[in-house]
Amino acid sequence: MTITETPQLPNGVNVEALLGAREAFKGDTSLTKFTWRARNEWVNGTHSRTTIDDFSGVGGEQSHNSPQVHDADHPALFAAEDNDSTPVEFVLHALAACLTGGVAAVAANRGVKLNSVNSVIEGDMDLQGILGMDREGRNGYSSVRVVFEIDADASDEEIEAIVAQSRNRSAVYDILTGNVPVEITVAAK
Amino acid sequence: MTITETPQLPNGVNVEALLGAREAFKGDTSLTKFTWRARNEWVNGTHSRTTIDDFSGVGGEQSHNSPQVHDADHPALFAAEDNDSTPVEFVLHALAACLTGGVAAVAANRGVKLNSVNSVIEGDMDLQGILGMDREGRNGYSSVRVVFEIDADASDEEIEAIVAQSRNRSAVYDILTGNVPVEITVAAK
Repeated sequence: MTITETPQLPNGVNVEALLGAREAFKGDTSLTKFTWRARNEWVNGTHSRTTIDDFSGVGGEQSHNSPQVHDADHPALFAAEDNDSTPVEFVLHALAACLTGGVAAVAANRGVKLNSVNSVIEGDMDLQGILGMDREGRNGYSSVRVVFEIDADASDEEIEAIVAQSRNRSAVYDILTGNVPVEITVAAK
Repeated sequence: MTITETPQLPNGVNVEALLGAREAFKGDTSLTKFTWRARNEWVNGTHSRTTIDDFSGVGGEQSHNSPQVHDADHPALFAAEDNDSTPVEFVLHALAACLTGGVAAVAANRGVKLNSVNSVIEGDMDLQGILGMDREGRNGYSSVRVVFEIDADASDEEIEAIVAQSRNRSAVYDILTGNVPVEITVAAK
């Protein structure tokens, strides 16, 4: 018999805590209103740097364990310095991470042990838009594809259902497939 | 008199190369069809890791100067390990970086020298969606706000116009404000 300090969490997900939070929030749904926040600073050319630290939710200001810094740039092909991934690639990262975290949580809730979850995410984009060549075409992705490879102690049907449920709950999937109103202003000097 | 090896680029943006590319692409618009790509691997719990390296465009396979690795996780508040920013925060990073790179490029093209560009990006989200409490509400952002602070050798009106033009050409702004079809499949084992 092995005695461990922390309980074994299925897929590393604390299902009990999540279900407990859901119950607690039912009494006061103002607690579920979150505002996520990022601060960006231009570095040079198309290179910029974002710091992510604080956010608000559960009725007050919160912060991450530590601030995280993320750069972005354009590739050398666009006569840029390629200091980091492009903004549109970060959108793919966000989608993959959201769906994959969801797969782990849904699988844990269903008692399914995951051995591995890999995905390849692709997005098609015609650069005529951002280059100003074709003002009729769209600037962003015309389509995005996600292909999962999942090894789990479950049938193909159970795995398909877990992925479908993750998609149904995914914030980033909803952001991409629905219209998000975006307001851009310039602060007075 | 100072002799430098490289020409001075306005705001660090190679405007001539970009305008040259636009002219070259006009002869063969198959060159502007890009596919961006990301590969994600589940680590543990809601923690996953994305590698971004290769993409296709300008008629063939391309790659970045070096692969970039980005993690994502959920915060401690959600009983997770908070190893990195959340997927929805990466969406804000992508939007900020896209608009800011655009501001630098548009300003350079208009002969406006930027001294500094800072922005705060916020996104509102009701967690009832992703927690499965309210299946009518949306899972992602109900609204996003971007506030720029820009110090440039230009009038307020010129700065406003530069930001507006960056928005009009922004791929990530278009992805958020328009519907992107997303197909999710599970590869057969």
